Amino acid sequence: MTGHIGRMPRPSLREQIIDAAVATLHRHGFNGSSVQDITEAAHAPKGSFYNHFESKEELAIAALNRYWERVEGSLTLLDGDNIPPRERIARYFGRLNEAARKGGFRTGCMIGNLTAEMAGQSPKARNRLAILLARWTAAIKSCVKQAQADGSMRRDIDPGDAAAFLLNAWEGAVLRSKVDRNSDALTGFERIVSTLFAPSWTAPVASSRRNHDRAAR
Amino acid sequence: MTGHIGRMPRPSLREQIIDAAVATLHRHGFNGSSVQDITEAAHAPKGSFYNHFESKEELAIAALNRYWERVEGSLTLLDGDNIPPRERIARYFGRLNEAARKGGFRTGCMIGNLTAEMAGQSPKARNRLAILLARWTAAIKSCVKQAQADGSMRRDIDPGDAAAFLLNAWEGAVLRSKVDRNSDALTGFERIVSTLFAPSWTAPVASSRRNHDRAAR
Repeated sequence: MTGHIGRMPRPSLREQIIDAAVATLHRHGFNGSSVQDITEAAHAPKGSFYNHFESKEELAIAALNRYWERVEGSLTLLDGDNIPPRERIARYFGRLNEAARKGGFRTGCMIGNLTAEMAGQSPKARNRLAILLARWTAAIKSCVKQAQADGSMRRDIDPGDAAAFLLNAWEGAVLRSKVDRNSDALTGFERIVSTLFAPSWTAPVASSRRNHDRAAR
Repeated sequence: MTGHIGRMPRPSLREQIIDAAVATLHRHGFNGSSVQDITEAAHAPKGSFYNHFESKEELAIAALNRYWERVEGSLTLLDGDNIPPRERIARYFGRLNEAARKGGFRTGCMIGNLTAEMAGQSPKARNRLAILLARWTAAIKSCVKQAQADGSMRRDIDPGDAAAFLLNAWEGAVLRSKVDRNSDALTGFERIVSTLFAPSWTAPVASSRRNHDRAAR
C-alpha cells in the first residue's frame, strides 16, 4: 500500500532467496546445496535467511512452488482448440525436451530430482511433490481424454493411467538424458509415444476403406 | 593364500564398507550420507575409511557396482526359453515392482536416485551410471527382439528405442511411487505396457483371415 503507482515494488529478500534457491537446488540438489550457497547466489546476507525461513526444508518447498509456476505456465500448451489434442500433447513434451536440450541435459527436472532425493527424508516435501505431480498428471489427463474423444489417440487405455504413464515415462527419460548428456532418451520417448499412442484401429479403418472401395467398384 | 580349506575368509573391511554404503546411499543418497554414517553402518572405525577408498565418490562407484550385481542377477528372468519372451519382460518388471512394494516404496532404484543426484556433480559417477544403464537396456533389448520375432510384441518400433523407453519409463514410475507411497504408478506402468506393446497387427490379421475366408468360399 506504500508503493507508488507506476513503480514496481522491489522484490523482497524472501523472493530473491526463493529465486536463487530454484536455480541452486535444481542444479545441485537439496543436500548438495547449503543455506550459504543459496544466500550467496541471492546476494543476501547469510544471517538474513532465518528471518524469512524456518529451515532449508521450508525454503525447498517454497522453491518447488516457484518452479511449479513455470510448469503450470507451460501447461497452456495443452489447451487451445485450434490444435488437435494429440498434437498438443506431442508439442508439449517436445517443448519440455527442447528446454532440456538448451540446458545441456545437465539439470533434468527439479521435481524429479527432488523426488529422488527428498521423498524419503522430508514428509513435507514428499506431500508437496505428490500434490504437484497429481496436478501435472490431471492437466495431461484432460488432454488425453480430448484426444481419445476425437479419435486421434487409442481408446483402449484409461486416460488417467495414460497421463501418469506419460509424465512418469518422461521423468524417467529426462533422468536418463542427464547421464547420457544427449537427447537419445528424449527423442526415443517422442518416437515411441507417437507410435504407441496412435489409434489402435488404424488397420480396421484401412480394412473398412478396402471394403468401401470394393463396395464402390 | 593363508586361508584354511573349508573356512570362508572373513569379508575384508573394504567389502563391509561397500555393503553398508549400498544400503546407506540407497536410502539417504550421496549428499545425504556422510562417511561417518557409512562407516558406522559398517561397524568400521571411521579412520579406516581412507585406507580403503580415496573419496566418498570412489566408494559410491564401488557401491553402484555392487548394486549392479543384484540388477544383473535379476536379468536372468529375461532369459529362459520355456517362457515366451514378452511374458518374460512382463514378469521382469513385475518382479522389480514387487521388490519396490516390499520396500514400502521408500527407496526406489539406487541407480535412478544417484543419477538424479550425482550426474551433474561427478563425471566419474555419471560415466559409470551411463555404462550400467546401457547394459541394462541391452539386456531388455535382446528380449524385446525375441518378442518381436515370435510375434508377441508389435514390430513397428525399434527394439533399442523400445528397451530404453521401457527402462526409463520404469525408472520414472518407481520415482513416482516414492512420492505417492503406493503402487499406483507401478501397476499403471504394467497395465499400460501390456496394452501398448501388444502386437499392432491384430486387426490386419483379422482382415487377412477375412480375405482368406473369402478366397476359400
